[in-house]
Amino acid sequence: MKIEEANKLCLEKIQSSTAFWTDIRPAREVVPGMDDYTVLHAGPPVPWDKMCGPMRGSITGACIFEGWASTPEEVGKIATSGKLNFDSSHHHHAIGPMSGIITPSMEVSVVKNDVHNQETYATLYMGIGKVLRHGAYDDEVMEKLRWMNYELAPLLKNTLAEAGGIDLKNIVAQALQMGDELHNRNRASNALLLNNLVQHMIKVGPRELVIRAIDFIDKAGHFILNAVMAGSKGMLDAGAHITNSTIVTAIARNGYETGIRVSGLGDRWFTAPAPMIDGVYFPGFGPEDANPDMGDSAITETIGLGSFAMAGAPAVVEYIGGTAQFALETSLKMYEITAGEHQTYKLPPLNFRGTPLGIDIRKVVETGITPVINTGIACRRPGVGQIGAGLTAAPMECFSKALEAFAHLRAKKM
Amino acid sequence: MKIEEANKLCLEKIQSSTAFWTDIRPAREVVPGMDDYTVLHAGPPVPWDKMCGPMRGSITGACIFEGWASTPEEVGKIATSGKLNFDSSHHHHAIGPMSGIITPSMEVSVVKNDVHNQETYATLYMGIGKVLRHGAYDDEVMEKLRWMNYELAPLLKNTLAEAGGIDLKNIVAQALQMGDELHNRNRASNALLLNNLVQHMIKVGPRELVIRAIDFIDKAGHFILNAVMAGSKGMLDAGAHITNSTIVTAIARNGYETGIRVSGLGDRWFTAPAPMIDGVYFPGFGPEDANPDMGDSAITETIGLGSFAMAGAPAVVEYIGGTAQFALETSLKMYEITAGEHQTYKLPPLNFRGTPLGIDIRKVVETGITPVINTGIACRRPGVGQIGAGLTAAPMECFSKALEAFAHLRAKKM
Repeated sequence: MKIEEANKLCLEKIQSSTAFWTDIRPAREVVPGMDDYTVLHAGPPVPWDKMCGPMRGSITGACIFEGWASTPEEVGKIATSGKLNFDSSHHHHAIGPMSGIITPSMEVSVVKNDVHNQETYATLYMGIGKVLRHGAYDDEVMEKLRWMNYELAPLLKNTLAEAGGIDLKNIVAQALQMGDELHNRNRASNALLLNNLVQHMIKVGPRELVIRAIDFIDKAGHFILNAVMAGSKGMLDAGAHITNSTIVTAIARNGYETGIRVSGLGDRWFTAPAPMIDGVYFPGFGPEDANPDMGDSAITETIGLGSFAMAGAPAVVEYIGGTAQFALETSLKMYEITAGEHQTYKLPPLNFRGTPLGIDIRKVVETGITPVINTGIACRRPGVGQIGAGLTAAPMECFSKALEAFAHLRAKKM
Repeated sequence: MKIEEANKLCLEKIQSSTAFWTDIRPAREVVPGMDDYTVLHAGPPVPWDKMCGPMRGSITGACIFEGWASTPEEVGKIATSGKLNFDSSHHHHAIGPMSGIITPSMEVSVVKNDVHNQETYATLYMGIGKVLRHGAYDDEVMEKLRWMNYELAPLLKNTLAEAGGIDLKNIVAQALQMGDELHNRNRASNALLLNNLVQHMIKVGPRELVIRAIDFIDKAGHFILNAVMAGSKGMLDAGAHITNSTIVTAIARNGYETGIRVSGLGDRWFTAPAPMIDGVYFPGFGPEDANPDMGDSAITETIGLGSFAMAGAPAVVEYIGGTAQFALETSLKMYEITAGEHQTYKLPPLNFRGTPLGIDIRKVVETGITPVINTGIACRRPGVGQIGAGLTAAPMECFSKALEAFAHLRAKKM
């Protein structure tokens, strides 16, 4: 099969994909290979000694949550002793924002791509600021985590069952016409999600808990993000493993390295040092506090959302910086490195042109344009949390390495 | 006071205004001058014999609802006998979309401008298609009307009390950053409203009714519109009656005539024949079925929403026709006929420039540009309902007549 045909097939599989949020289950029951002492993290694989501060902070919180340790020192011990089995979530059909830590007792969303029979998983979104995914683990964070896991999650599970699942692809498509880009701006998608959930939630939940849950989901602002990430991964995974395709199926960062996966290159990661983020800081923080780029959330850009859909979300610049014109130009530039346009995700300001979809490693290398990523900024010190948001890019080195591997593979076949 | 100073004062009063949706009350209890057999309608005053088909249809439904008649023939009799007291809603601090019929038993929203001590009223939004405001009055319409009046309205009343009121200005400001223009596109504002209401609604209402109410408000799509119209009127009324001000404080149509009111010209209406609408028709309907422009909803344009805010709502063109570029240009053109820019209502695609606010009759006449109005299209035959949506404009004749009256008044004073 020629490259163009392979890429066409890849895009067809991605485009025909669905994303139904159907269930909430403990990670140990659904995530493949999730055994005791398994710790999944964002981005390509990274050993403990290379992990950044916020990722170590998140692991500390997760280990305390699991009861594997009770202090950061104890966590350090079991981490260096080899007792913890670290792995990339991407190797387990799972995904997570920022540090993206998933351990067995955590409740995860189950999102189904029923056309391609893929099931993907993500933890629940905790809110902004001092939260586990940004490396915070104080008592307040742990209490919230327990509330989410043991009160919110069962309610959501019953709500999703009552609703017969939530069609995330439909919500995303609508929200793109309502100023969301679905990575750093989820105001509309979150409101639509809540509207969808609430009628069913009040049928299955006790009044006080329902009130608390609605308030939490509303105020969290981006609650839908993790589920959308899982849905996006399920779609992109449908396009993975197509021989001769040069389409990127994952961009993920662990705070140490950024890695990409390419459809025709299987499960290999092509990595480069994680870049810094150019952004807007919360009061009291600045670039000297910032961690390099981290998290699996660039899956949104990979599926044509985030910075790729910024043209339809000018208000996101209030959060990540820049101007409306810049937002427009950023999305327009992404068409230069993509193989197609999304048939369901449309941008009203571009007269409903589909969002740029299918990053082609050849085009990235040829044009010198790297995929822009809208993202949050974590504090480099563990225990602090999010300190801002801004823009970065997946490094060129990932794409040039991938293209080299691709050329090598083609040469071998001939 | 000079004209510029008067206009500045007018805009200051409008801008400092608030809009809190605080209560639901029967019209007879709150609307001034709402006696038995009072029938308020949209637009400038119009006698029965000049009323268009859909307005007569709405009055038929309202009279049956009130128990004043039981057939269209009986309604025709009491209408021509002088038993019904017709008047413009604007003369009673009230407002309504399309025919805008309000009779004493109808429950109305109470919206407060607490800075300027104004209270305004509007009936509840019934949905799209075959509805009373478009002149439909069959059994289905009447049943829905009764359900809304006797089940939904009391629940909403209790919900608003529990919530301590809903800040409509805040919701409008947010929704402008989420692709709404607040006249024909209310997807975001309606979702935000529902998010705001629901936590309180489940505290005060029985579960089954709450489920039905949420479903109705969600599916109605534009449920918030009538309350926003009342709020907009309350803001503009704060800027009325300022000597020497040339700012338009109301644009309203009754399907026969379009009328405007100007701050420095008191309560006088300056009218012209209502124009037709250039739009997109629902399947099975065309221009030959269309009624001329009707309704008080152009109050949204008057406060800087609707077509004035279309630059931020490109997706509205799917409903009313045109392109995203056209939507942008329409809003830009409105800056040429306005005296200022809204300090709270902002347009992200224009780098958060305030929406054009304060139509100046002098600028309209000077530039030849008339205010564009996004609006629904009613069927000219009574009993049918809405058949499309599109764009029209307030006729130049309204503005030239007003400017003439203004010049005349100034000449007398000198």
